[in-house]
Amino acid sequence: MSLTLGVDVGGTKILAGVVDDDGRILEQVRVTSPATDAGAITAAIVGLVKDLTGRHQIEAVGVGAAGYIDRGRSTVMFAPNIAWRDVNLRTPIEEASGLPVVIENDANAAAWGEFAFGAAAEVESSLMVTVGTGVGGGIVLDGALQRGAFGVAAEIGHLRVVPGGLICGCGNHGCLESYASGSALVRYARDAADAGHAPGLLERAGGSVKAITGPLVTEAAQAGDEAAIAAFAELGRWLGEGIASLVAVLDPDVIVLGGGVSEAGDLLLEPTRAAFRSQLTGRGHRPEAELRLATLGNEAGLIGAADLARHR
Amino acid sequence: MSLTLGVDVGGTKILAGVVDDDGRILEQVRVTSPATDAGAITAAIVGLVKDLTGRHQIEAVGVGAAGYIDRGRSTVMFAPNIAWRDVNLRTPIEEASGLPVVIENDANAAAWGEFAFGAAAEVESSLMVTVGTGVGGGIVLDGALQRGAFGVAAEIGHLRVVPGGLICGCGNHGCLESYASGSALVRYARDAADAGHAPGLLERAGGSVKAITGPLVTEAAQAGDEAAIAAFAELGRWLGEGIASLVAVLDPDVIVLGGGVSEAGDLLLEPTRAAFRSQLTGRGHRPEAELRLATLGNEAGLIGAADLARHR
Repeated sequence: MSLTLGVDVGGTKILAGVVDDDGRILEQVRVTSPATDAGAITAAIVGLVKDLTGRHQIEAVGVGAAGYIDRGRSTVMFAPNIAWRDVNLRTPIEEASGLPVVIENDANAAAWGEFAFGAAAEVESSLMVTVGTGVGGGIVLDGALQRGAFGVAAEIGHLRVVPGGLICGCGNHGCLESYASGSALVRYARDAADAGHAPGLLERAGGSVKAITGPLVTEAAQAGDEAAIAAFAELGRWLGEGIASLVAVLDPDVIVLGGGVSEAGDLLLEPTRAAFRSQLTGRGHRPEAELRLATLGNEAGLIGAADLARHR
Repeated sequence: MSLTLGVDVGGTKILAGVVDDDGRILEQVRVTSPATDAGAITAAIVGLVKDLTGRHQIEAVGVGAAGYIDRGRSTVMFAPNIAWRDVNLRTPIEEASGLPVVIENDANAAAWGEFAFGAAAEVESSLMVTVGTGVGGGIVLDGALQRGAFGVAAEIGHLRVVPGGLICGCGNHGCLESYASGSALVRYARDAADAGHAPGLLERAGGSVKAITGPLVTEAAQAGDEAAIAAFAELGRWLGEGIASLVAVLDPDVIVLGGGVSEAGDLLLEPTRAAFRSQLTGRGHRPEAELRLATLGNEAGLIGAADLARHR
């Protein structure tokens, strides 16, 4: 049995785990991410790596990080939610552990995890779509993770879906992320509450529109609240239509829907699938990719990063 | 020297050529395409193949065809502008020639031609965008042509760019093709003429708005006609913005602009490049793909199909 270490670095937490060659996690640790301090994040990662490599026979380390990773898989060029600007993450981890280290984009790592061991384990190509605060993605074609020429492929949240649309964190207008993310879900629900169309949601939020959150919308939708279900339907429509565009370009076997919002299951999957099917170009004249929910949950990135380190 | 045969089958003509392993065409023939009669097209292709294989020592045949090709590279599942529905093209050509035959999508074949011998010959990944009557594409990543899981990848003309936008031949609304094709160029020019803003174009067209064609708009723009230049600028803006979305997903080294409309050169390239650069997500924080004009012209598909047959 060969073991590698996977680390998933997000804006709020750092997750590290020891993973075997079947994608099983033998031990896992988690710390809060000091996201505003680049040096402290690196130190926290190094601390976790030293801890776990001290107690297990590890052969390599894979780190999934939210940001643009260079093509050499060593440096975070830019991260929208973390204080990284051209930070070499690989060298300090290599020096601390004495092991080979690869740095990957976190969404790529999660896509690889689901491809290797999760929802897309039996096919040759998949598009992973992660719906959380934003919308991320990862692309595997003919069995190979597609990092792009410069390491920044699969930024699917920044597909423009509405010319002159809502302003995005990236500075553009009308990105898919602004219409199909967890943030958009909350906006749809709050707008409905503001307009007096969501009495049940408002009641759950103690009468304060601002207290309506993603988990609250999910909980209400699961309990049958119409306005909450409508917010998921709106999100799913944009997401499915965006996926139809992506499938026209990539033609994968499978689309894997992951990220925090996908934990709502059929509430998200069903409207997304309906919109995807109604919007796919050439429908009826071509085989159609299958849309599935992710199966590895929060651990997809960790498992994927560990496996990418194994196959470095 | 090893020779293969490349055949490019379009809605109006069939081009066949004998190609060496440096991508040079030794002999080329062309016939009109009997596009409404599936049997006659196959017979015409077989005729060209028999003719050329009778006179050259050919080791394999590659056919680029406008349509959805199955993953086994034998059958045209569907073609929008040719009378093909689930037509096996490979078997009759194999039987007539006694040679190995591969069938490819024509835009994929052209993308491969430009990648192997043309504008993207020195890089590892490229996105080819063909602007003709419609908008087509081909994707090469890490040196491999990306056909998709079902053989129908790179249908980039059917990326949706305007929700509820113009109706497309594919049945959807708002496809890139409706805004960034040669047909759109003519529409922009005719609309300007209808509105009284294109006196020079109208004069060139003998006073008839309907007589304004793509070549006429190109000619006028090259002569400095403002309305014609504005039509190219509008086309280039949509095209460049669409390419920005595609580059967010694919992150190629190079984007190659081909197809009939690209023969206008800088008239198309400059506004396309400006829009691409102004719209690329993360610009300033990432390396940027280079946008180039195709160099193989009409022969890219033929050359690419022949080379794909060699490397079958």
